[in-house]
Amino acid sequence: MELWFSERHTPHVKLSIRVEKQLYSAQSEYQRIDVFESKEFGRFLTLDGYLMLTEKDEFIYHEMITHVPMAVHPNPQNILVIGAGDGGAVRELVRYQQVEHIDLVEIDGLVIDVCKTYLPQIASGFDEPRVHIHLEDGVKFVRSCENKYDLIIVDSTDPFGPGEGLFTKEFYGSCYKALREDGIMVNQHESPFYVGDATAMQRAHKRIVDSFPISYVYQAHIPTYPSGHWLFGFASKAYHPISDLNMEAWNELGIKTRYYNTKLHAGAFSLPTYVEELLKDAE
Amino acid sequence: MELWFSERHTPHVKLSIRVEKQLYSAQSEYQRIDVFESKEFGRFLTLDGYLMLTEKDEFIYHEMITHVPMAVHPNPQNILVIGAGDGGAVRELVRYQQVEHIDLVEIDGLVIDVCKTYLPQIASGFDEPRVHIHLEDGVKFVRSCENKYDLIIVDSTDPFGPGEGLFTKEFYGSCYKALREDGIMVNQHESPFYVGDATAMQRAHKRIVDSFPISYVYQAHIPTYPSGHWLFGFASKAYHPISDLNMEAWNELGIKTRYYNTKLHAGAFSLPTYVEELLKDAE
Repeated sequence: MELWFSERHTPHVKLSIRVEKQLYSAQSEYQRIDVFESKEFGRFLTLDGYLMLTEKDEFIYHEMITHVPMAVHPNPQNILVIGAGDGGAVRELVRYQQVEHIDLVEIDGLVIDVCKTYLPQIASGFDEPRVHIHLEDGVKFVRSCENKYDLIIVDSTDPFGPGEGLFTKEFYGSCYKALREDGIMVNQHESPFYVGDATAMQRAHKRIVDSFPISYVYQAHIPTYPSGHWLFGFASKAYHPISDLNMEAWNELGIKTRYYNTKLHAGAFSLPTYVEELLKDAE
Repeated sequence: MELWFSERHTPHVKLSIRVEKQLYSAQSEYQRIDVFESKEFGRFLTLDGYLMLTEKDEFIYHEMITHVPMAVHPNPQNILVIGAGDGGAVRELVRYQQVEHIDLVEIDGLVIDVCKTYLPQIASGFDEPRVHIHLEDGVKFVRSCENKYDLIIVDSTDPFGPGEGLFTKEFYGSCYKALREDGIMVNQHESPFYVGDATAMQRAHKRIVDSFPISYVYQAHIPTYPSGHWLFGFASKAYHPISDLNMEAWNELGIKTRYYNTKLHAGAFSLPTYVEELLKDAE
């Protein structure tokens, strides 16, 4: 039997993954949730038919959205993670002993339950006592916070559907207010390659630049995301993502990673010319 | 009508591109050659059903395989390009005034003819008087050369079919011999992500390390290649790819690029940990 999951990256391009078995399918209050088993990528999660993560390459996304800011901030103790109901970002964060408190805000509790059941190696940090789960709208949650977090990670879906509010000017302003005076915000920043993704990326960049004094974009190779060329935003009140990186301190922590390393850290901020131009055009 | 070109990146993953029209199809002495027209990528060329280049993203591959060594070598005058019948590498090389002579060796003359007709913006450098075309097997051509070239670019297809010989120990040894005492060889180095590509990449790396005293690997985001994470090999008799980069000199040339820049140059050599480990395992 041939069973293929396909995602259209644009109306004219699709990536297809051969599926062994559909493990789960349900409609939550917010979205359709599916889990599939595949030979090439292991298990993978889709929301409304969009691929969110696969067991084979999720380490790239989760390492890059967490270790980059964690290696720059000298003492991140209090962290807010918005979205990320799969638990991958939290799994990386709880590896740092200096982290005292993580608030995880996910609008859809069913995503957490499904990941705990079907993707336990990704959703492995939820039972840590330092992790506090809030089943709420991230936009509302952060609105009421002030001068509280060292780091905010915006691990959103695409800028439509449930994730739409996490790309607004109001939301980035709330994040700024919720951060301490040397706080960092990192966000999932879409892709520069296909026109639709690039437009979303430019819009997000413009809004972040307007909200934060320091704002840079970095990249990673994520094979199962559209074009495989994915971006993250690094916005900060005080720290520069490269000159404030303390390589030695991070390497002394002894955190074993498969994608991130402190040499790659600086390289990830060296963007192709066409991406730099897209960002400049947006500013 | 829906007409889709699909390439299996592994038996379990495929990338599909919606086609407007098939512009050309023929069987040469060596391979099947097709050109398609698409909305998303413009025209694209396939050999034996494998996607070689698209008008939308070929600039990434061709800029990265040429400008990286050209920015390191202080005076590249005599250049050998093997494969590359599409002309993209030559198009970039003829932008350098100090280049005096380019030998292009392509086994399949029909590829050149087809690209001149259907992809004229890529095959734009062939008529330059500095460019000398040799319709020969690259392995044989380079065997008879000695102390002749400043730069050899191995712009091969995958390590099976007509491109197989361009991944052998004997071939890399011939390239070493064909280079002047401070010569550089750059090659298409496959991808680290899917197991089959990664094995080919490790095998090529091992053979190059055995042949050259200096050998590094660098990466680029090429959306239409398997996984989008593509590697190039930089092998040299004398120059280090980063410490011998003369940023100022290259920027003074005023060559306008869309992917390559001298900041990205160093970043491209900062590889993910899992890729570094694959390379180390091969050495």
